[in-house]
Amino acid sequence: MNKLQLFEQIQKKQSFLCVGLDSDIQKIPEFLLDTSDPIFYFNQKIIDATAAYTVAYKPNLAFYESNGLEGWNSLEKTVHYLRDKYPDVFLIADAKRGDIGNTSAMYARTFFETYNFDAVTIAPYMGEDSVTPFLGYPDKWVILLALTSNKGAFDFQFIKDENGVKLFEKVLQTSQDWAGSENMMYVVGATKAEELAGIRKIVPEHFLLVPGVGAQGGSLSEVAKYGMNDQCGLLVNSSRAILYASGTADFAEMAGKAAFEVQTEMKNLLLKRGLIK
Amino acid sequence: MNKLQLFEQIQKKQSFLCVGLDSDIQKIPEFLLDTSDPIFYFNQKIIDATAAYTVAYKPNLAFYESNGLEGWNSLEKTVHYLRDKYPDVFLIADAKRGDIGNTSAMYARTFFETYNFDAVTIAPYMGEDSVTPFLGYPDKWVILLALTSNKGAFDFQFIKDENGVKLFEKVLQTSQDWAGSENMMYVVGATKAEELAGIRKIVPEHFLLVPGVGAQGGSLSEVAKYGMNDQCGLLVNSSRAILYASGTADFAEMAGKAAFEVQTEMKNLLLKRGLIK
Repeated sequence: MNKLQLFEQIQKKQSFLCVGLDSDIQKIPEFLLDTSDPIFYFNQKIIDATAAYTVAYKPNLAFYESNGLEGWNSLEKTVHYLRDKYPDVFLIADAKRGDIGNTSAMYARTFFETYNFDAVTIAPYMGEDSVTPFLGYPDKWVILLALTSNKGAFDFQFIKDENGVKLFEKVLQTSQDWAGSENMMYVVGATKAEELAGIRKIVPEHFLLVPGVGAQGGSLSEVAKYGMNDQCGLLVNSSRAILYASGTADFAEMAGKAAFEVQTEMKNLLLKRGLIK
Repeated sequence: MNKLQLFEQIQKKQSFLCVGLDSDIQKIPEFLLDTSDPIFYFNQKIIDATAAYTVAYKPNLAFYESNGLEGWNSLEKTVHYLRDKYPDVFLIADAKRGDIGNTSAMYARTFFETYNFDAVTIAPYMGEDSVTPFLGYPDKWVILLALTSNKGAFDFQFIKDENGVKLFEKVLQTSQDWAGSENMMYVVGATKAEELAGIRKIVPEHFLLVPGVGAQGGSLSEVAKYGMNDQCGLLVNSSRAILYASGTADFAEMAGKAAFEVQTEMKNLLLKRGLIK
């Protein structure tokens, strides 16, 4: 999916919601454990209940890998289900990969060929040749970690170089030599919304994938205030607040309701900015 | 496996060789493609031919993931084969993972519970809470990226802070608050051997996992000169130079020969340092 198509989906659904499929076998409603593939069953129901309000889905690979082969099977089925039934959603592999060139090329093959994701999250520590192998695919995206939503972000991401430039700013600056806003997005945590204004000065055109709204405490209106641009430029992720809105038989219904509430707020923010009518 | 046990294995095998199982379906001898699981067959033969000279094996996850479910199946079989037949080898998941706390906890479950690896490679960008979930397992290890062997290492890892401390040095310093040399190792590329002396001043006791000898051009004697400590403190990885020593029917024999040559050099370096007799 290219940038314009993504913006069109945002306008059509009046939403910039990304639902993170952090589907945890230890957290899904207990009665699902009797089904043959509980995680896939759970995902199907969550997807069907939320698809009308959602432009992107983001399976979090850790939650699938931790179940071994069975988990990868659930992931594969989830991806096929999304691709078949909802071909217009933007599909992100939240994998945080990144390795030397020949290895990153293999990861790119995994996510863009074997699984046909639209985008994959990448850690920047190993630099250019760990990222560029993901950039050779038309209409596929790298989503590079810049400023993450966790406490550990303060350990290294705010280190200032001799010119006062913080590491996450350096990542934003340097990586623009590798790809433009048609193939690269950045992870910017909502828990640090006040940084978004400065980040927008460095990457005015890029989409930002924003985790940390909901369970982690970030505010959607703050994110929109500092981060929205003329093509929206935001995908805001919510995982736990939607997936686990209820732990009983009405889990899908309540997930849909939670997604609808976020989408309603997003619609108002898009209206306010004049991006939809 | 704990630190002392690892050193004992090094003394027993007179080797600090780690064989990287970057087993690529497009590079293994063509006649293997007729077998039911070519990657697992290839790995078995490579392992049997090299185990006498090798203290650690390091499957590179990208190469398995890129084959989807089939690839994870090959990985699972390889891990079981190693655990059953060679229980004394140190088993590293080269995965370069790292995410927010609850997600890293899932990755830890994957590699330490589902697959029973001894160690997993982790990217430091997201800081403490992305690493600590891996540290709650006795005798299991985090191998944190410090200074990598690729060209892109120069993009961010050498950035100096206001006190002149480089980012990779900061990673070495800061992460010592999270774990000691009994649970943490560091990736330090052999292509930057001249940095090893400085690194040893920051982490005198830690094991270092050193990629980049062989195909990437690093020198083993330089690595030993600057990096070896009183418990050896080194695992030097070789992947392509061993796996693809020959592309025909004698591939395993030639891999064994290549591993034996490296082990012979390592034995001399261990002798010289007085760590074996």
